Amino acid sequence: MASQTFEEISPADFFYRNREIAGFTNPSRAIFAAIRELVENSLDAAEAFAVPPNIYVRLSDEQDSTPGTYLLRVQDNGSGITSRHIPSAFGQVLFGSKYKLKQSRGTFGLGGTMAVLYGQITTHKPAQIISSTASSKVYKYRIMVDIQRNKPVILERRILLNRDRWHGTIVEFSLEGDYYRAMPKILDYFKQTALVNPYANITFVDPKGRLYKFTRVTTKMPSPPKETLPHPYGVDVEKVKRLVRVTPHNNMLDFMKSHFHRISENIAKRFIEFADISPKKNPRKLNPQEIVKLVHMMKRYEDFRPPSASCLSPLGEDLLKAGILKALKPEFTAVCQRKPSTYAGHPFIVETAMAYGGEIPKRGDFILYRFANRIPLLYDEASDVSFRVVKSFNWRRYKASQDMPIAVLVHICSTKIPYKTVGKEFIADRPEIKREVLNGIRDVARRLKRFLSKREHVAKEKRRLNIFSKYLPKIAKFTTELAGREEEPDIEKLLLSVRKVDRKKTDD
Amino acid sequence: MASQTFEEISPADFFYRNREIAGFTNPSRAIFAAIRELVENSLDAAEAFAVPPNIYVRLSDEQDSTPGTYLLRVQDNGSGITSRHIPSAFGQVLFGSKYKLKQSRGTFGLGGTMAVLYGQITTHKPAQIISSTASSKVYKYRIMVDIQRNKPVILERRILLNRDRWHGTIVEFSLEGDYYRAMPKILDYFKQTALVNPYANITFVDPKGRLYKFTRVTTKMPSPPKETLPHPYGVDVEKVKRLVRVTPHNNMLDFMKSHFHRISENIAKRFIEFADISPKKNPRKLNPQEIVKLVHMMKRYEDFRPPSASCLSPLGEDLLKAGILKALKPEFTAVCQRKPSTYAGHPFIVETAMAYGGEIPKRGDFILYRFANRIPLLYDEASDVSFRVVKSFNWRRYKASQDMPIAVLVHICSTKIPYKTVGKEFIADRPEIKREVLNGIRDVARRLKRFLSKREHVAKEKRRLNIFSKYLPKIAKFTTELAGREEEPDIEKLLLSVRKVDRKKTDD
Repeated sequence: MASQTFEEISPADFFYRNREIAGFTNPSRAIFAAIRELVENSLDAAEAFAVPPNIYVRLSDEQDSTPGTYLLRVQDNGSGITSRHIPSAFGQVLFGSKYKLKQSRGTFGLGGTMAVLYGQITTHKPAQIISSTASSKVYKYRIMVDIQRNKPVILERRILLNRDRWHGTIVEFSLEGDYYRAMPKILDYFKQTALVNPYANITFVDPKGRLYKFTRVTTKMPSPPKETLPHPYGVDVEKVKRLVRVTPHNNMLDFMKSHFHRISENIAKRFIEFADISPKKNPRKLNPQEIVKLVHMMKRYEDFRPPSASCLSPLGEDLLKAGILKALKPEFTAVCQRKPSTYAGHPFIVETAMAYGGEIPKRGDFILYRFANRIPLLYDEASDVSFRVVKSFNWRRYKASQDMPIAVLVHICSTKIPYKTVGKEFIADRPEIKREVLNGIRDVARRLKRFLSKREHVAKEKRRLNIFSKYLPKIAKFTTELAGREEEPDIEKLLLSVRKVDRKKTDD
Repeated sequence: MASQTFEEISPADFFYRNREIAGFTNPSRAIFAAIRELVENSLDAAEAFAVPPNIYVRLSDEQDSTPGTYLLRVQDNGSGITSRHIPSAFGQVLFGSKYKLKQSRGTFGLGGTMAVLYGQITTHKPAQIISSTASSKVYKYRIMVDIQRNKPVILERRILLNRDRWHGTIVEFSLEGDYYRAMPKILDYFKQTALVNPYANITFVDPKGRLYKFTRVTTKMPSPPKETLPHPYGVDVEKVKRLVRVTPHNNMLDFMKSHFHRISENIAKRFIEFADISPKKNPRKLNPQEIVKLVHMMKRYEDFRPPSASCLSPLGEDLLKAGILKALKPEFTAVCQRKPSTYAGHPFIVETAMAYGGEIPKRGDFILYRFANRIPLLYDEASDVSFRVVKSFNWRRYKASQDMPIAVLVHICSTKIPYKTVGKEFIADRPEIKREVLNGIRDVARRLKRFLSKREHVAKEKRRLNIFSKYLPKIAKFTTELAGREEEPDIEKLLLSVRKVDRKKTDD
């Protein structure tokens, strides 16, 4: 019997072999995933530059190729990429700018390269990247990915003058896909991205030349997310080991204060006492046992302040409402931003909204829009924490039923979204997150209930008044005749007096 | 505005940061995942050696540590690992023996190292690995993982004599976990693993010293899976590029015949003509455009033979039945092995079973056991293709209802299981697979229906006979008296004559 033979593969090779787990499951999902990954990079890049995003996406048939091959171009006005990083940013897996404790759309440092890699393995053509950071030069690269070595191969590099100090990135490459099967999801994706990024201009030109334009409703952007330090509840032995290796501090007090989130002088002192470590101990001299003990003590100490959500950038109730009004034109909207909460040392904020009527279809089921760090999640709904909450929600208590045109929206933002897949399709069932989603939905459902009650009341009253206004004239006429009078009494006054509600606007 | 800062991370660092996607979500899931990954490696190793697996798993409290820290030991009688590969097999991510077109439990080359890595980041203790390939030596290593460099760090290496030519591997390391929350899933896991590997001995000793022993019911093992060549429908440009780079052949005919699955001389000739390539063309001289065209033509050519399932190793109806009978002791069992089928060039076989009564609880819902390449899948049931099929199945048509004690079992084996997560929790909704699962469930449901009808009929008949046997003696007595006779007639004959069915066994 032979023993097993072993081999090592590069991360690019791993994701090439297992592209399903990154969302590139089949030609239809692949074209969706490629567009989405690049659009999300573009939105992040524009926000990094603090400008309202202008994103242009064009998918066109490849002239000389077999049917089902497309040329994809995504252009943004973001921060751009410095020249020396361009090849790796799109030609190397696990190379990125998102490996930080910071709210961002991308999290795995995979998306851009996976899109380019998928294009390459289906068409064997290089990708072209043009980028500038508003410097005096624009860089243009043609690259391919050496999948087995996980390295970009630079085929061409050109430097152009940047007279008008343009900034942004243009990515263009060929890929195989099934656009017509993916179309509904792609259009949904753009619509929902516009809904939750109402300060972005997004243009999409499809292979038939049809133009879809989503114009911003505001230029007010939410304050940008900030990078943050790890919270003591969220670190493990490896993290502390890495901090110990790089710290410039030589006592535990300063070490705790400067490498962890929300640790003041006082808290640091009290914790170090609790952990039974000398404040003067040099952190670089902690041995493995001491590091393990330190981490354990961090988990057991109850007086750390909770992670601050100031590093997060939720959408805010106004922007959320503006987005919904534009996308769904509902009769009624309620939005709610929950207070910051935390799981495993990561801060998060849940925003919920509920809308009724307008352009929301009656589907025999509630329509759920799921968002995480301002990106829409469109696949594998049934596995998502929000879906489970909506499914088991006691709707009857809120006078709502499935045949009503109701849309529910859940937005979760966090420095770390607990996605279950690298393809960012759905969020794991963390109890802390589940609770916040439930509370958020309860809040907006209560307001929907008030709206529905009011509406019901108004409808009832209208029916009552209709009866009065139908019979009163007849009664007036009859009694006038009976009394032998000539002139009928003025019934308008009477009608007004039985009116219990104003026909004012019933919006919340 | 600053532009983005970029960094590169190692694959070990990637999975350390995103351990949720590999199944290490929280202390309870982590301990489950660690046990499972190592047991599956052990089962694969025993089958590679073609011996019925003997697997011993022990989880014990760590003496001198904080509560919630365990020592895990997994021992097998498998093929063992050659000395020079031991450190990387458990100390390097994306290093493994499973990167082949072959049915195996492991697929991502991650499991063992992820388990060791998780132990290290929670306890900072090294892992100990002892292994021998039945040679004259046993190797013992103590290693840690350098996560940032994705390399094993060897702390100790010892060579022992192997007098009795032992073969196998023993892995032992500390990890933090929540055994008591994970316990039901872990015991389920062992039970179901035993069910679908009825030729394995599995022993589990838990931290309280309780012994769970699953004894094999047979020593007959299914024929081992074989490595196979890629099917032309399943390859992409990158794959062909790699083949072209390494092929020893210098004409297209030989190239096609020797690097692809089920291509005979004749098929190769006809395909090359179809693809408009000269049979004498040197494959090493194919240019990128020609490679792209070749791949396109492969997808369009309709006369390739379907992938052969001879490389697969399904369980077989007998073994499946034996496993179910032992685990559930049902009143009725039906098993079905579907004919081989394919998706995207990968062969697969679906096996289904349905069992009724016995130790199957009435849960108000059907109990679904999901298996893939002989491992049980226990988490995220609602996202699995089999769950969707069972959920939407027309049970009433088969006289079955949710309040009956019915268990459904689905086993899918393939050279590539389309898992949606690296944690191997559930299988994607591939239409080809969905169809086969549905057909397999229909087949066993039909047999269940026959059983249920028969049972119903027997019950009815029993009631009818009960009435006869209750009243006939009275009628006999009465009529005897009435007729003035002394002796009552023999009613036993009469009773037998109205009997329509034998009270024979009603098992299928």
